[in-house]
Amino acid sequence: MTFLFIIEMIGAVAAAISGIRLASVKRFDWFGAYIVGLVTALGGGTLRDVLLDITVFWTTSWDYFVATGVAMAIVLIFQRQLVRRLKALLVFDAIGLALFTVIGIEKSLMAGRPIWVAIAMGLITGAFGGVLRDILINEEPLIFRKDIYAMASFLGGVVYGIAFALGGDQVACGLSCAGVCLTVRMLALHYSWHLPIMHPDNE
Amino acid sequence: MTFLFIIEMIGAVAAAISGIRLASVKRFDWFGAYIVGLVTALGGGTLRDVLLDITVFWTTSWDYFVATGVAMAIVLIFQRQLVRRLKALLVFDAIGLALFTVIGIEKSLMAGRPIWVAIAMGLITGAFGGVLRDILINEEPLIFRKDIYAMASFLGGVVYGIAFALGGDQVACGLSCAGVCLTVRMLALHYSWHLPIMHPDNE
Amino acid sequence: MTFLFIIEMIGAVAAAISGIRLASVKRFDWFGAYIVGLVTALGGGTLRDVLLDITVFWTTSWDYFVATGVAMAIVLIFQRQLVRRLKALLVFDAIGLALFTVIGIEKSLMAGRPIWVAIAMGLITGAFGGVLRDILINEEPLIFRKDIYAMASFLGGVVYGIAFALGGDQVACGLSCAGVCLTVRMLALHYSWHLPIMHPDNE
Repeated sequence: MTFLFIIEMIGAVAAAISGIRLASVKRFDWFGAYIVGLVTALGGGTLRDVLLDITVFWTTSWDYFVATGVAMAIVLIFQRQLVRRLKALLVFDAIGLALFTVIGIEKSLMAGRPIWVAIAMGLITGAFGGVLRDILINEEPLIFRKDIYAMASFLGGVVYGIAFALGGDQVACGLSCAGVCLTVRMLALHYSWHLPIMHPDNE
Repeated sequence: MTFLFIIEMIGAVAAAISGIRLASVKRFDWFGAYIVGLVTALGGGTLRDVLLDITVFWTTSWDYFVATGVAMAIVLIFQRQLVRRLKALLVFDAIGLALFTVIGIEKSLMAGRPIWVAIAMGLITGAFGGVLRDILINEEPLIFRKDIYAMASFLGGVVYGIAFALGGDQVACGLSCAGVCLTVRMLALHYSWHLPIMHPDNE
Repeated sequence: MTFLFIIEMIGAVAAAISGIRLASVKRFDWFGAYIVGLVTALGGGTLRDVLLDITVFWTTSWDYFVATGVAMAIVLIFQRQLVRRLKALLVFDAIGLALFTVIGIEKSLMAGRPIWVAIAMGLITGAFGGVLRDILINEEPLIFRKDIYAMASFLGGVVYGIAFALGGDQVACGLSCAGVCLTVRMLALHYSWHLPIMHPDNE
């Protein structure tokens, strides 16, 4: 429990940092940057809880508010060093993506939803914080145009579903899902894998 | 039932195609385009269900996921022909608008809401998928600037309300609503009807 | 009750006017401008109610629809005069911000949520209508980049929390919250106070 919680907070801080840094590029003020960071960290889970019609997770604990505060401090104090640590940030972000996907799937199954809804909710939990971030800073969502990000979450979800169908217990399902999600994301980053791009009609 | 379901799926495919084609213009990748298509098809109904606090419709059936897959295949395979079939697409889209408006109104009445809330929900069901699509691809919502689209849904809703107040049964109310919505939308397309544009202060 | 209701409607009209005027700059049509105005007026409260999982407030009364209609008439008829009355508009908007913050906090406490959730909901009620407005018109949210706006709501919320912890009754808590929020906002407008801006990495 404690170990998972530490991982979750690392993922939340990494997500918040990505939001705060992009808000900085747009020259948002401190308060605005904090809110963009917060929405990046908890937006996916919030959308999941609203769609599942269960209590929104951050209304029972302010962990994510603290995590975003930590992210804010890191960006303000270590801004220059961060640029050289981008790779570490992306690794933490990938760990967060993997864990958030598992959390989203398990919350949905606990709420009594079928596995395919759970896979969709895993994707929403993992990837839609970044979508909401990009909407707030008025950019086209990055995850729809670059890298394999949402797809890594989706593939992890499919693996969870297969393990689930084969009778795997929660730990086995969760570990295989997170493992696939993290591996696909890291390989995609390392080898610059991309999905095929859509082409407009007039070409 | 089956007939209505076929119409609903045609409307969903038409909506998804509009999302996928606009995502193509922005050079989203395949996965991103699929998600934009999906949000266009089911976004309005999702917002309605969240606002009504009822079970989000797509969490009990994956029809819309399949419909978006069909839309994706149509765009990828028939892209060039689609450009010459724009008129057919717009007709299907108008049929979807009319049917989604009726579905939104009836779902709201079934949830025990007053008729004016139902009309608002009909509009949201019919037109807000396109709004969410335009937010995702980072464009100003088309329906607020061009053609008579949301207004057609609204007028259909008002006609539903009148038929409802006059004691019409569900079929009569639904048919008159869909008929008005579809007629207004098709006439607006054919004669290039527009609503008056707002003018900024400095003119 | 009646006095508070009049204040709330003035706040709603002021919020709707800000949405309609920004939609005019983007040359939305009348219907689109009305919807942007409506979303500005009721968007924050809607998000609050969805996050608290309580009945969305505007589905039980159409006050805000009427208030937006009044705002629409004011913009269309008095457009030129409005430019010279910008200061009055900003005062009404600040009054709305203060009252919406109090309403958001009290609704959350009535729903049994802890005070820190209530403060967050006060901020969302007061400031997120403007965020949703800026998302709809495809601009970077103004409140994250300019002036002290969301911060005024937040400070008012903190004062509510302090008064609440000290055992103040509802009237005392509400008045001190609204007073601080309004004072901070008006001082920020008058002296052009800003929060520090974030700087991107490469500086």
